[in-house]
Amino acid sequence: MKSPTKALELFRLPDDFTLRDADASRQPLGDCDKGDHKDATAALLERVAALQPMLNAQRKHKVLLVLQGMDASGKDGAVRSLFGAINPVGLRAVSFKAPTEIELAHDYLWRVHREVPAKGELTVFNRSHYEDVLITRVQGMVDAKECKRRYAHIRDFERMLAETGTTIIKVFLHISRDEQRTRLQARLDDPAKQWKLDPADFELRKKWRAFERAYEDALRETDSDHAPWYVVPADSKPHRDLAIASILLETLEGLKLKWPKPDPALLAIKIR
Amino acid sequence: MKSPTKALELFRLPDDFTLRDADASRQPLGDCDKGDHKDATAALLERVAALQPMLNAQRKHKVLLVLQGMDASGKDGAVRSLFGAINPVGLRAVSFKAPTEIELAHDYLWRVHREVPAKGELTVFNRSHYEDVLITRVQGMVDAKECKRRYAHIRDFERMLAETGTTIIKVFLHISRDEQRTRLQARLDDPAKQWKLDPADFELRKKWRAFERAYEDALRETDSDHAPWYVVPADSKPHRDLAIASILLETLEGLKLKWPKPDPALLAIKIR
Repeated sequence: MKSPTKALELFRLPDDFTLRDADASRQPLGDCDKGDHKDATAALLERVAALQPMLNAQRKHKVLLVLQGMDASGKDGAVRSLFGAINPVGLRAVSFKAPTEIELAHDYLWRVHREVPAKGELTVFNRSHYEDVLITRVQGMVDAKECKRRYAHIRDFERMLAETGTTIIKVFLHISRDEQRTRLQARLDDPAKQWKLDPADFELRKKWRAFERAYEDALRETDSDHAPWYVVPADSKPHRDLAIASILLETLEGLKLKWPKPDPALLAIKIR
Repeated sequence: MKSPTKALELFRLPDDFTLRDADASRQPLGDCDKGDHKDATAALLERVAALQPMLNAQRKHKVLLVLQGMDASGKDGAVRSLFGAINPVGLRAVSFKAPTEIELAHDYLWRVHREVPAKGELTVFNRSHYEDVLITRVQGMVDAKECKRRYAHIRDFERMLAETGTTIIKVFLHISRDEQRTRLQARLDDPAKQWKLDPADFELRKKWRAFERAYEDALRETDSDHAPWYVVPADSKPHRDLAIASILLETLEGLKLKWPKPDPALLAIKIR
């Protein structure tokens, strides 16, 4: 297995990125479908779990991890992997579903801004404001001109968050069309998962290429050093988890977290 | 009394605006301290009150009125005048006080974005995100560089709101230093108002010129056609109310509000 200390470089959105040329089955961190990947991921998440209380105690940084990806790309699975390792008190996950009537009565960033992390928090968005330039565009609810306007809103919004202390990591979970078929079929066959399916999901699958184009545009238009996009090949679930763990750990290590200094008066206390 | 149909021009922030050159006792809508001003204001607010249900029924526009001004400039009084005339169901007033611990743990636009009007709503902000470039600056909590950054955030935020259907009106209630003295003294002498006072208010009064400069910068830096500033001379309370009523009415009239068309099926119904 290659050193995971370079994940932030390995997975950063390349210039002139196209999904057609990208390989969703690539495993640049090493072949995770055999060998010691699980131990490696667990070891990384243990280090994340050790840094999180420091993040929380210091109350200086806010960390936001955005997960996006096609249906069945493993967003829920990735969140479960993270939660399994990190104290849930320190990790907040927010799932953005189809907007409610009250949410639709406001601008599309309204419900997202409400949920951004506070100082000391680590928050994971399962879907996000990016849906408002993805599915809405594929379904023709917004046109190219409105999308352009929204890319600008999103860039402004994320820059404001970054300039007020938020570290933003955006991960696109990349699966192939074949892998999606396999996973959707498995869900269809599983009585414990059938209820999650909507016939509309299969209609959306027909618009695969339109989704690819929408993602390519959105990623290119909203990638920046203060809110970078990472493209994680996600056909392999173990590789997906290892990659996300690496990206998260390297980001947290980059914050140079420290325990806050104690009140000097404390050092003089003798407990009798 | 001059025609009130030009208030949006009369009070719009002039180029090269300075507070020192502005006259807080001016009454361009006519001398309101005598004569028929009360009837005029009431008549305008009645028209506002008649338009508001249409705004609400149409659920298309969102209207945000931001009130800013020095202590004792009449923000509360203006809100009371509006509420006296408009059905409270259709008007929501939000007072932004010193931020709470949870608010401080987020970016300074977080608590403001939560409260922006939904479709069909008319919302009044008594103080706003502008406090984060005014009192914070005068008190040295943020420096000029950080203020510049915040002006950009605020411009971006307001443009996004405007582009997603919000009509923004920002009113600066301008009082003179002498008028503030008179009003603060009146509060000091009134047992029903003493409790609202804080010795810190009188310290802030000493920084009058610093506040003036902070306002001049903030107004100039954040004025735009989609989020315009209006400077309302407010030494005269009746004139203040007449001016705000005029600005609000002209803005609502500019929206060309209409009752939504009924479901055609309704027209075929015969109630027996």
